[in-house]
Amino acid sequence: MTINHLSTGIDTIWVVLTAAMILLMEGGFALLEAGFVRHKNNINIIMKVFVDITIGTLCFYAIGFAFMYGSDASGIIGTTGFFLSGDLSHLHPSISTDTFWLFQAAFVIAVISIVSGAVAERMNFRAYILYVILMTSLIYPIAGHWVWGNGWLDTLGMEDFAGSAVIHALGGSSALAAALFIGPRKGKFTSRGTSTIALPSNLPLASVGAFLLWFGWFGFNAGSTLSASDPRIGHIAINTMLSAAAGGAVTLIYTLFRYNRSDAPAVINGSLAGLVGITAGCAYVSDAVAILIGTISGLLMLAATQWLESKRIDDPVGAFPVHAVSGAWGTLAIGLFSSSGGLLTTGHWHLLSIQLLGLIILCTWGFFCTWLGLTLIKQWIPVRASEEEEEIGLDISYHGMLAAYQHHDFLTEEDYKPQSNIDKP
Amino acid sequence: MTINHLSTGIDTIWVVLTAAMILLMEGGFALLEAGFVRHKNNINIIMKVFVDITIGTLCFYAIGFAFMYGSDASGIIGTTGFFLSGDLSHLHPSISTDTFWLFQAAFVIAVISIVSGAVAERMNFRAYILYVILMTSLIYPIAGHWVWGNGWLDTLGMEDFAGSAVIHALGGSSALAAALFIGPRKGKFTSRGTSTIALPSNLPLASVGAFLLWFGWFGFNAGSTLSASDPRIGHIAINTMLSAAAGGAVTLIYTLFRYNRSDAPAVINGSLAGLVGITAGCAYVSDAVAILIGTISGLLMLAATQWLESKRIDDPVGAFPVHAVSGAWGTLAIGLFSSSGGLLTTGHWHLLSIQLLGLIILCTWGFFCTWLGLTLIKQWIPVRASEEEEEIGLDISYHGMLAAYQHHDFLTEEDYKPQSNIDKP
Amino acid sequence: MTINHLSTGIDTIWVVLTAAMILLMEGGFALLEAGFVRHKNNINIIMKVFVDITIGTLCFYAIGFAFMYGSDASGIIGTTGFFLSGDLSHLHPSISTDTFWLFQAAFVIAVISIVSGAVAERMNFRAYILYVILMTSLIYPIAGHWVWGNGWLDTLGMEDFAGSAVIHALGGSSALAAALFIGPRKGKFTSRGTSTIALPSNLPLASVGAFLLWFGWFGFNAGSTLSASDPRIGHIAINTMLSAAAGGAVTLIYTLFRYNRSDAPAVINGSLAGLVGITAGCAYVSDAVAILIGTISGLLMLAATQWLESKRIDDPVGAFPVHAVSGAWGTLAIGLFSSSGGLLTTGHWHLLSIQLLGLIILCTWGFFCTWLGLTLIKQWIPVRASEEEEEIGLDISYHGMLAAYQHHDFLTEEDYKPQSNIDKP
Repeated sequence: MTINHLSTGIDTIWVVLTAAMILLMEGGFALLEAGFVRHKNNINIIMKVFVDITIGTLCFYAIGFAFMYGSDASGIIGTTGFFLSGDLSHLHPSISTDTFWLFQAAFVIAVISIVSGAVAERMNFRAYILYVILMTSLIYPIAGHWVWGNGWLDTLGMEDFAGSAVIHALGGSSALAAALFIGPRKGKFTSRGTSTIALPSNLPLASVGAFLLWFGWFGFNAGSTLSASDPRIGHIAINTMLSAAAGGAVTLIYTLFRYNRSDAPAVINGSLAGLVGITAGCAYVSDAVAILIGTISGLLMLAATQWLESKRIDDPVGAFPVHAVSGAWGTLAIGLFSSSGGLLTTGHWHLLSIQLLGLIILCTWGFFCTWLGLTLIKQWIPVRASEEEEEIGLDISYHGMLAAYQHHDFLTEEDYKPQSNIDKP
Repeated sequence: MTINHLSTGIDTIWVVLTAAMILLMEGGFALLEAGFVRHKNNINIIMKVFVDITIGTLCFYAIGFAFMYGSDASGIIGTTGFFLSGDLSHLHPSISTDTFWLFQAAFVIAVISIVSGAVAERMNFRAYILYVILMTSLIYPIAGHWVWGNGWLDTLGMEDFAGSAVIHALGGSSALAAALFIGPRKGKFTSRGTSTIALPSNLPLASVGAFLLWFGWFGFNAGSTLSASDPRIGHIAINTMLSAAAGGAVTLIYTLFRYNRSDAPAVINGSLAGLVGITAGCAYVSDAVAILIGTISGLLMLAATQWLESKRIDDPVGAFPVHAVSGAWGTLAIGLFSSSGGLLTTGHWHLLSIQLLGLIILCTWGFFCTWLGLTLIKQWIPVRASEEEEEIGLDISYHGMLAAYQHHDFLTEEDYKPQSNIDKP
Repeated sequence: MTINHLSTGIDTIWVVLTAAMILLMEGGFALLEAGFVRHKNNINIIMKVFVDITIGTLCFYAIGFAFMYGSDASGIIGTTGFFLSGDLSHLHPSISTDTFWLFQAAFVIAVISIVSGAVAERMNFRAYILYVILMTSLIYPIAGHWVWGNGWLDTLGMEDFAGSAVIHALGGSSALAAALFIGPRKGKFTSRGTSTIALPSNLPLASVGAFLLWFGWFGFNAGSTLSASDPRIGHIAINTMLSAAAGGAVTLIYTLFRYNRSDAPAVINGSLAGLVGITAGCAYVSDAVAILIGTISGLLMLAATQWLESKRIDDPVGAFPVHAVSGAWGTLAIGLFSSSGGLLTTGHWHLLSIQLLGLIILCTWGFFCTWLGLTLIKQWIPVRASEEEEEIGLDISYHGMLAAYQHHDFLTEEDYKPQSNIDKP
């Protein structure tokens, strides 16, 4: 037993454990989204997460990983490592390629799960499967290569420790594109221009999701060191905690004083916004700045949610406000507050301009690739559920059952038969 | 890479991972409590946990940590480390202050979450926020300093490995004070002196909570070593498991033979009582003693639950029986069974008397500070929800919605409007 | 601090953390099974998991561990280590006996939880408790000794890294025996030979369970190295992920094209089948083979589910298809694909024949011991719930309450009284 052998071992278990924590976030996404949408679409949104974690994983294994982390070609794309074979000797040396892959797979599944929320309750299930293939094979891996795979944004000096930009701003921009492309849920906006009330079908379930996401985020951010000996781990973890706390606290207090009631979905999304906001800079900023980043993330999330409503854009679980807006803010915050190169900490504009450039590139890439992808898919199959499918609910339409049957006996054919005159609230 | 560098790394990931596990216990508290209370108060109890984990975290960062672990003044209080700045060089040297803080923050949030259950279904939400500030800034940190921060009880030789006394007995005593101060839920005790039946709104949800708590407890107890090289980790973990198993088994079998049915809430609380009971002594007693501690914890929890009912004290989720009673027993059990100094193992009374003294001090401190704090808060705002708020339910009253809407369509204003003639069971 | 001291520390935290992850799988089993069965039996199935984790743990501590890992007698049974005392010096030296025990306890609880699903909704609760005692004290430990405790199958060269055979095939065979012994649920199969429709009571709850199981499985498989320095950890983890993804993907796509709807319970069980299938070979096969094993596991699970229906065998949550069938396939797949000794990789029949022999022995042992055990129990108390208990539901019959009361007020005696004319769906 040598010290290097031991060091590899400890790095390996650190990355495997944190990857498992990130993968548990899929449970978090599934439950958060299921709890937020209407009861008749609960299974569908959970099944979409299963598409992410099954088909998405296999696509990233076969294709995506090579484009992202394969041997670099001109700073644009990776070229080796399809099916994890071929030359990958340039990768992080202290852990095995297998271990590294698992961690990165957990990341790509998170990206696509962000989009799944924005198209909730109205996307055609087969079209969603095709979109998952595109996102996990091409859209995210290529952009990820630029920043994390020795690509051109990496060379320029863009900083994004655990993915406020690469994961959240890109995922959130793609989510916005998809929400716009597919259009709002039937009945969400009335002809008089007012929005109806879309109350969560199950807030305790959504809360389970939020707690699992919060737990997994420690893996997300601290695990991104990829090394247990990285001296920043403790600081990353405390920054993650403080920003989440600040994001949740500010939405809790703001809604309490503004509306005279603490709005539960806002508090949940505020905490998540704090987590998203600190993801880029968790290793680069002080703890006081982490609180500031979380606070502003929470407020921006609230503002962006209202902006979406005013523009009649329907994003059922708040994917754009939570992920794109807070992610963008977190990316820029590095340019302001980084202890090495931040505008406010060192007086240099250089890093901020790089961060802004990278952010615009990633958001544009996510938005247009998603729009283009959905346009292509539409040539073949509808990307939107039919009116009848949406009315009945996607659970019955695509999965043949409802999420819950509070039955005490076995069902007869008649009980079970999907009905169009489904229970009103 | 030196061996010391590696050792610091492994200690850091151990503490960060176990801290994340303890923070996931907040999900456990939220779901356990939500599952136990009436449907109309589900959101409120989850939102109170969000207050704990957001505002509580920030208070402990700004103030509480300094009082608890700052440089000691006369054995009474810490004096440095507000906002994590200032001299903290006296702290545990093998991990960074950031890492140490995260673990301690997870502890303080657990304490306040214990109280949240006891005041379920009837406390004013704003008053609860103020109480959280008091508890996480002052009440717990000062008492914690005495035992864990080089304070006077520490100097006397009081032993409390992971907090049966500091966390659970103090939290549970505070819970009792709060429950007494606020009074029973409207309708819980009839004028004829009998108690009504308060059945859990959702036992599967409560069970999710219990399993998350059980999982997190391995982080709670074994993580309290703060070092991965501590040779006691395996023994702590097995003691934790055996005591929980014994606490659950004895309540399962007792209720089966006594009432001819295994009472699910009792079994859940019995397992938790076993976990609470072993928390103080997990590093000091043998595995056989761990089983004994768990068994007695379960039985004491049952007895204390009946005692509360007989005294017409309303503690909706059993915070006092589970945390205060089992925590007190666990604290004293060290004095009886510790391999170094226990009365029954070594014949010396000294340790037991110290444990008893410390326990009385901590319980008294928690009880009276809570009573005083609520008295002060009451000068400003009511600590109890109004009759109408309580009748409608705290979810509608303080958060503007119910926990679940099994709706299939968007709601109109009329559907949504909080109604006083809410559905009867 | 020496390097050996540090190495022991890192192995210890690795095993304790992965053991905690496996124990969280009990939450997964409980919720998955509760979500799949009818509402009136939700508490009962969760309480059975509590029997597993409380009484099962204590039996394994007192008796089972000694039979499994005690000093070997003739390759048949262990003979030391009752109550963890006596000579256990032959065990894995790098971690303490306590640590090793905790990990093995998490395994035995998983075995018995497999059976709990197959007898859902109709087994007498006291009889189940007795069966748990048998399984955790005798049936599993003795068979486990043969393969993992220096027993005769171990000597022959049988390979089962983390338990496709010892845990899943044995558990699944026992589940089949129990399902056959007890017979189908009343009303499940009609007199005309057709099966009724048994829709899940709560799919989101079942999904929480599936995600917890998936998370815990990384602990199950990678933790089975029992050493953080094992160079196979990363490979084991990626194989686990790929096989699960393949199992879920194939069932998702198959049901989509075959039935024109992606069947949610099938996708959940397909992912779990992939996890079961790779459990034996995760350390021995390539990543491409892992995908193959997962794919076939998913398809075999679907076929076995149909076979059970055609034979009118009632296995409410699919314990036999998921655990026995996929486990058997995974055990044999080592004989086909192992990089050292696989038939297709090296051309040798030897390993495959050993695997087949071991598999037959374990399945036969599980099946007949369970049958015999239930026969013995039946001499004393009925193993099946009475017709009335089953009709009312096991929650009311054995635990005195229903799983959920969506009540807003306290219940009167009348509201609460168990009723036979319980709500129809």
